[in-house]
Amino acid sequence: MSIIVQKFGGTSVANAEKIARAARRAIKAKLDGHQVVMVVSAMGHTTDELVALARQVNPNPPRREMDMLLTTGEQVSIALMAMAIEAAGHQAISFTGGQVGLITDSAHTKARIRTIDADRIHKELKAGKIVIVAGFQGITSDGAITTLGRGGSDTTAVALAAAIKADACEIYTDVDGVYTTDPRLVPQASKIDQITYDEMLELASLGAGVMHSRSIEFGKKYNVPIHVRSSLTDIEGTMIVAETAGMEEIVVRGVTLKKEIARIVLVGVPNKPGVAAQIFARIAEHNIVVDDIIQNVFDKGQEANIGFTTSLVDFREAQMVCEALAKEMKLRAVETDQNIAKVSIVGIGMKTHTGVASKMFNALAKAKVNIQNISTSEIVVSCLIDAKDAEKALQVLHAAFELDKRGGK
Amino acid sequence: MSIIVQKFGGTSVANAEKIARAARRAIKAKLDGHQVVMVVSAMGHTTDELVALARQVNPNPPRREMDMLLTTGEQVSIALMAMAIEAAGHQAISFTGGQVGLITDSAHTKARIRTIDADRIHKELKAGKIVIVAGFQGITSDGAITTLGRGGSDTTAVALAAAIKADACEIYTDVDGVYTTDPRLVPQASKIDQITYDEMLELASLGAGVMHSRSIEFGKKYNVPIHVRSSLTDIEGTMIVAETAGMEEIVVRGVTLKKEIARIVLVGVPNKPGVAAQIFARIAEHNIVVDDIIQNVFDKGQEANIGFTTSLVDFREAQMVCEALAKEMKLRAVETDQNIAKVSIVGIGMKTHTGVASKMFNALAKAKVNIQNISTSEIVVSCLIDAKDAEKALQVLHAAFELDKRGGK
Repeated sequence: MSIIVQKFGGTSVANAEKIARAARRAIKAKLDGHQVVMVVSAMGHTTDELVALARQVNPNPPRREMDMLLTTGEQVSIALMAMAIEAAGHQAISFTGGQVGLITDSAHTKARIRTIDADRIHKELKAGKIVIVAGFQGITSDGAITTLGRGGSDTTAVALAAAIKADACEIYTDVDGVYTTDPRLVPQASKIDQITYDEMLELASLGAGVMHSRSIEFGKKYNVPIHVRSSLTDIEGTMIVAETAGMEEIVVRGVTLKKEIARIVLVGVPNKPGVAAQIFARIAEHNIVVDDIIQNVFDKGQEANIGFTTSLVDFREAQMVCEALAKEMKLRAVETDQNIAKVSIVGIGMKTHTGVASKMFNALAKAKVNIQNISTSEIVVSCLIDAKDAEKALQVLHAAFELDKRGGK
Repeated sequence: MSIIVQKFGGTSVANAEKIARAARRAIKAKLDGHQVVMVVSAMGHTTDELVALARQVNPNPPRREMDMLLTTGEQVSIALMAMAIEAAGHQAISFTGGQVGLITDSAHTKARIRTIDADRIHKELKAGKIVIVAGFQGITSDGAITTLGRGGSDTTAVALAAAIKADACEIYTDVDGVYTTDPRLVPQASKIDQITYDEMLELASLGAGVMHSRSIEFGKKYNVPIHVRSSLTDIEGTMIVAETAGMEEIVVRGVTLKKEIARIVLVGVPNKPGVAAQIFARIAEHNIVVDDIIQNVFDKGQEANIGFTTSLVDFREAQMVCEALAKEMKLRAVETDQNIAKVSIVGIGMKTHTGVASKMFNALAKAKVNIQNISTSEIVVSCLIDAKDAEKALQVLHAAFELDKRGGK
């Protein structure tokens, strides 16, 4: 008998009707002969409401207590889900993260999973029950309640699937799969049938929502096939799997756009060992998330410009930190640009196909999009461009790599 | 250093402002040199809202899942309370029932406490923290989440106070103490300064809200002084204590009224051993709560009328059960009355004073209130009367025993 993990996000359990719908889906899988484990998130906007409540009481709430507060959201969902399944005449049992022995480290609000006790779940599955587990949460080895950070319910689902050796992990969401690009920006975007963990990781880190990176890392590490699909239809979604022969025939799997980026450049930095380290250590101290790093050496190697991109959210603080640094280090200037976007193409096919990057640059050139910076990894090419060209760039790249035709294949 | 347990009910933590107020009270006790443990209920109407949500999903939700659902209410409160105390610059730590090792039996929705792990609490108190414990909840020895039933937070507070050998247990509520009777019905009602556990138990079982019986039983068993007081003022409330010399000088401590009672009488029951047992076994099978039992023998001891009172909530089902019984046993009739009330006087002084019951009957007679049935225990005399006379009876008894003058002494 195969085991399936089904994960339902907040929008899929937002009210009694949607909970009943999710319950029916789990029951159907059970009647089809599977053992079923559900992982559920907090209902709709519950988490946001709890955060707002906390801020009323304490503008800077302790992380341990924040976890104590937020985990109630998923606990409400699992209880209601179990009730819904029982109402439909099937047996169910709900568990908090702590109750299934989902042990984490003690980094409250962003804890990492250490172990999961598979026996408890197997015992209830063997007893014929649908097992419902609260997403997003765990406990430390000494019993403190923790949460796994943003997208934590996906991580719970995939980690559970790995721990109980599930045959598949289905992620139910309000879209019907992973798309070649954002359909709101490119109407020709098409659903991807199969994608590798590595490609999906890049898409996630480049801002394509759908799933959180850490859950995909778990899937890759333990080789859990992940099926991202709609909670509203029975259409097959997107399978996230290990690379198999033939998958690299599609050179580019998807195209992403990241907006609201700013660039900060320190001008005239002495080009000697340790300077870059000094600069980025200071930036890290302020918890500023750096995206790309850009360095150009000039003046016969005497001086360099060192720059980086960051989200607009962190921009003001990053600017202050850099200006203070520039003063201390007696640099020539700090230049900033708050109108930056990044377009990227992602595909494992790049590893074996040549001319992919130049095809990207050509397409952008033809559309008169100026490239300000280029960065590459094994399966990604990214270009920084002016924010005003962002949507146009995305569209021309989607067309250039014929993703409107390929996604659905 | 003395230890104080402070329990705050739902109305005392209904919003951010009230939570902050409760936090200040705990901090004040800490600054006064006490070690402080807070027990908190769910905010305002949270529990009712969760029950309504459950009913939307399942009209008859499984008890285990109901407990899973409802315990989130207190968990929200403890997290917010800890945040509020930290916001005021003091150290706090919150615990669920499970986290402080409040082990119960597995009777979901009405579990009974078996043990409490005092060490965990003592450790945090010694570290200088205000410890905040979720009321109403516990876990079974194999980790299932349970609740203690109505008034469970009071029980948590008193049981915790006993377990950690607290010097006092303060129950903060929206009234300023226990009254001689319901002030909404008798404006002359006055606050009682001191009352014995036994008297308080009788008041609770006779429908005087304030505290739940089980918490008072705990207080009595472990001799925990309980102080019922207002969360809005600093006025001393009512001390619930063991009987001490002089307390029985006040013959009647309080007068109660229970309304919405129905009486059902099985007419013409054969007067032989085992018949009453048979009848009440059947009633118990249907979980109908029987209040008073009334039996009259007539026809030279050949036949009897066997009756009982029950709440209007259980009346319809009780009537159906009795009519089925009457048919099986070929009884003459089932008579019912849905307009019954019960007035009672309560006081340990009755044990040593005579003429108390006759004073009660005289007062009712003078007010032309007909007594339909009388029941007594060591410290209580109760009369069943017509519901239309209920308030009048309460008022004349309150006046007859001069409770308007005595309560405050």
